[in-house]
Amino acid sequence: MRYVYFTHQDRAVLGVSTPEGVKILGEETLESLLARGVDLSTYGAEAVGPVVEVAEDAYLPLMRKPGKIVCVGLNYADHTKESPYAQPDYPTLFPRFNSGLIAHNQPMVRPRISDTLDYEGEMAVVLKSGGRHIAKEDALQHVAGYAVFNEGSVREYQFKSPQWTVGKNFDDTAAFGPELVTADELPAGGKGLLLETRVNGKVVQSANTSDMLFDVATVISTLSEAITLEAGDVIVSGTPAGVGFGMDPKVYLKAGDVVEVSIERIGKLVNSVVDEA
Amino acid sequence: MRYVYFTHQDRAVLGVSTPEGVKILGEETLESLLARGVDLSTYGAEAVGPVVEVAEDAYLPLMRKPGKIVCVGLNYADHTKESPYAQPDYPTLFPRFNSGLIAHNQPMVRPRISDTLDYEGEMAVVLKSGGRHIAKEDALQHVAGYAVFNEGSVREYQFKSPQWTVGKNFDDTAAFGPELVTADELPAGGKGLLLETRVNGKVVQSANTSDMLFDVATVISTLSEAITLEAGDVIVSGTPAGVGFGMDPKVYLKAGDVVEVSIERIGKLVNSVVDEA
Repeated sequence: MRYVYFTHQDRAVLGVSTPEGVKILGEETLESLLARGVDLSTYGAEAVGPVVEVAEDAYLPLMRKPGKIVCVGLNYADHTKESPYAQPDYPTLFPRFNSGLIAHNQPMVRPRISDTLDYEGEMAVVLKSGGRHIAKEDALQHVAGYAVFNEGSVREYQFKSPQWTVGKNFDDTAAFGPELVTADELPAGGKGLLLETRVNGKVVQSANTSDMLFDVATVISTLSEAITLEAGDVIVSGTPAGVGFGMDPKVYLKAGDVVEVSIERIGKLVNSVVDEA
Repeated sequence: MRYVYFTHQDRAVLGVSTPEGVKILGEETLESLLARGVDLSTYGAEAVGPVVEVAEDAYLPLMRKPGKIVCVGLNYADHTKESPYAQPDYPTLFPRFNSGLIAHNQPMVRPRISDTLDYEGEMAVVLKSGGRHIAKEDALQHVAGYAVFNEGSVREYQFKSPQWTVGKNFDDTAAFGPELVTADELPAGGKGLLLETRVNGKVVQSANTSDMLFDVATVISTLSEAITLEAGDVIVSGTPAGVGFGMDPKVYLKAGDVVEVSIERIGKLVNSVVDEA
């Protein structure tokens, strides 16, 4: 099943893709469905609702209030080489707050206080259940599905202190969507998928999700050694080489640029860049 | 006003301190009151409710689902000197997820995978309103009140990668309470207050909240340059020197230890340590 969250007749609604268009399931969010344990691999098929087209500018972030968003840094060896860091042998984890989330086709905002906005194409993983001390071999049973994420980063602020938090959490820089694809429709752990990022049509990142150093099962298992995971938590699994910060000279996003992140069989997430008002 | 969140007759209730005891205000949480803009400096006085005693083991975390918890690292010069870091000239900010919160008198849990649990006595700041690009001179108008926080940290996991996230987010290591003291009852910005941490009765941290390098107004203003702040967000303002990690040899918490963090005019937060089951 492929879920999409969007505005229809002034209401925020969840829909599911069908061959005829998007079938509206109602106003319940993915967050709420996941919290009450609904099986998304079948839910959309059973429901009855009107089939509509999603307007280009009607997309909402797939989820607006996940319980937590945990991102994995330095998870592709070639990206670590373009960063100021040596490769750690433990996942580099950091949060994104919900306040930064934007939707497919919604502008990503370059803040007025810095001109160092950069893209990071990534695969997001949405959990359908959680727990503590989840064994690696059981970890993928907790995955509801996968989506595309552009983990927009303001590099100047990412490196002003030892913790990346501020540079990773500017308003309107975390693009999430357009669709959640349930895990049953994809290879286990979202492996073996081509991930590409284009800026103004030019390929800048191209990698395979199998190149992650810490795969999805490992990240879930490792996190759960410390933290109780919950249905609706989101893991954003890291970006490969090719970010603007890694170029020589560095290239940052500017108003009018269009960034497309595509992951094979999951979808394509498009965001143009605007300057903060 | 001094607010407390606790269990009474199997219900989670909010109360306010009165000379006769704690007056029960009902089941609405601080999160919800703040979200709807209730003025906590007067709310508790006007309400009518039964006055009770709070049982020792009845405390709940002051808030269980703040929108975000942003902690300030390296915010006292003497603590930075005992850390592996040079002093940054920008606030070092990192998150705590809600999953780690515990209450006054509730055990702090030393995880089974590490024996490096450490305390950090800190002053927490709860926002009553938010916004973006908040000027430093206006920042304190957004503060609802102050509370005590013990920002328990598993040092081994804090330093396994460049980002502290995991070591700062173990389950049952973030103690928050016992009371929220509204800002009108305290010096502006919570300044000039003695903060002390005791382990098994011995003073291990002793500092004045005026020693913060980035004061509360500066942190609010700086964060809001990047991130829209919201009512109910929590800022945890940093710890002074004296943590176990800074001792030679290092000393970590073990089962049976009792940690007390007290801040003048705000309160005393007590947590014993237990081993994870």
